[in-house]
Amino acid sequence: MKVRRSDRLIDMTRYLLERPHTLVPLTFFSKRYESAKSSISEDLAIVRRTFAQRQTGILETVPGAAGGVRYIPIMGQVEANDFIAEMAGRLSETDRLLPGGYVYLSDLLGTPEVLRQIGRLIATQYLDQKVDAVMTVATKGIPIAQSVSQYLNVPFVIVRRDSKITEGSTVSVNYVSASSARIEKMELSKRSLAAGSGVLIVDDFMKGGGTVNGMRSLIAEFDAKLVGISVFAEGNFSGDRMVSDYTSLIRVDEVDTKANTLHAVAGNYMDKNAARLEELAK
Amino acid sequence: MKVRRSDRLIDMTRYLLERPHTLVPLTFFSKRYESAKSSISEDLAIVRRTFAQRQTGILETVPGAAGGVRYIPIMGQVEANDFIAEMAGRLSETDRLLPGGYVYLSDLLGTPEVLRQIGRLIATQYLDQKVDAVMTVATKGIPIAQSVSQYLNVPFVIVRRDSKITEGSTVSVNYVSASSARIEKMELSKRSLAAGSGVLIVDDFMKGGGTVNGMRSLIAEFDAKLVGISVFAEGNFSGDRMVSDYTSLIRVDEVDTKANTLHAVAGNYMDKNAARLEELAK
Repeated sequence: MKVRRSDRLIDMTRYLLERPHTLVPLTFFSKRYESAKSSISEDLAIVRRTFAQRQTGILETVPGAAGGVRYIPIMGQVEANDFIAEMAGRLSETDRLLPGGYVYLSDLLGTPEVLRQIGRLIATQYLDQKVDAVMTVATKGIPIAQSVSQYLNVPFVIVRRDSKITEGSTVSVNYVSASSARIEKMELSKRSLAAGSGVLIVDDFMKGGGTVNGMRSLIAEFDAKLVGISVFAEGNFSGDRMVSDYTSLIRVDEVDTKANTLHAVAGNYMDKNAARLEELAK
Repeated sequence: MKVRRSDRLIDMTRYLLERPHTLVPLTFFSKRYESAKSSISEDLAIVRRTFAQRQTGILETVPGAAGGVRYIPIMGQVEANDFIAEMAGRLSETDRLLPGGYVYLSDLLGTPEVLRQIGRLIATQYLDQKVDAVMTVATKGIPIAQSVSQYLNVPFVIVRRDSKITEGSTVSVNYVSASSARIEKMELSKRSLAAGSGVLIVDDFMKGGGTVNGMRSLIAEFDAKLVGISVFAEGNFSGDRMVSDYTSLIRVDEVDTKANTLHAVAGNYMDKNAARLEELAK
């Protein structure tokens, strides 16, 4: 049965939103709705226009016989700025500061709406790069990795500090924790990452960068390639950071352990992505 | 500027899909698109019809001054059956069996498409219950908890077996691991769960049920209420299970440690939800 345009637009929108970065051939929609390719093309032009106006995503057209459309989620400049400001505000709330200069983030990183935004924001930065997997270390980086992986539509892998018997064979590396100056060990299941993969490292909180540096060693052990490093928040770190090229959404710039308060501001995300966000706004 | 119907339908669909179980007043859409309430009502009727036809969700109407619409994601009967069969097949693949009768699941539980389906399927079971939080234990239950929490649009909380300094004060319980018969400890950050909350427990794999039972004790410690227990897979367990009322998507029914193979079948999900799925299909 031929499907009406209004019904097609609704179902098409849902279908595309659930499959970011996936090439969908026009013939697929044409069959699904028993409609002519020319009608489908018109539908997609409307979807493209609406997504662009609302700054929620790009609908990319790939021409030719093997072509189709691909939905690429983005977060626009205004929304990005607002979200980062909101998060800086949330982090500056009283009672977040924990012993050792850590920040309580479990509430934010357990809220679907916040995770959706973090994922969409980080994915926007890497939308045109070859990311084959998102990597993080257990436990608190996992929600961020999962959300980014959803928007890039690639798998995520979890590095562990504890040895678990339920992972099968693993590859491990030693790393130095910059904050504690101790040597630690982290490992990743052998079969979880293929050689040559492009890997995006994400984490919830970076202090000295030791953990991120450990993941970098693991990527080298797997003969994979580092695409980038993105963290939700970077802490106030007085020493030399082990990692220099990273992106942070939020930066904790003042910690007062006596008054038990902290002050958070925007990280370097907007600076790093200024040109990209200008381009996307066009 | 007044927005055209086609554009409204696309943006409305996206807006609703991103906010499951959230009441959106008609006046919100009416302002957003500068369109009459009557037009918005017609739009929503089309969205409702398309969602119902494709069995992707229910668009519930709440009448009255404080009313609006609410999108409730579901997975239809056919899709549910197909997905469970597919997963049983994937689990039966060679090389998944690990020492101790565990099953390698990290690839599946790191794939966004698989997680989306698991989340939607589990959320369908609890769509009309008062779930305030999804609870799981680190590490491998996290992706499932996050996905279910997205579809129910409630926070998730992570119980930990190791003590981490970055969680603040915690409440801990001891529990007996049924598989190893050892006494273990698990804990949850004090501020992560309010008294009286309805809690849904999810996990990746259940053997004797000791871990799930531990979470049940934690829920009692927080004066919260258990709404249900859902696991992705239940293992072959010869002893007495500590938990009897649970739902599983997959059941591992044969394990041959000599040949290093296992055989997985559908869990009790379809039986438990037969009536509900029939009802939703109408």
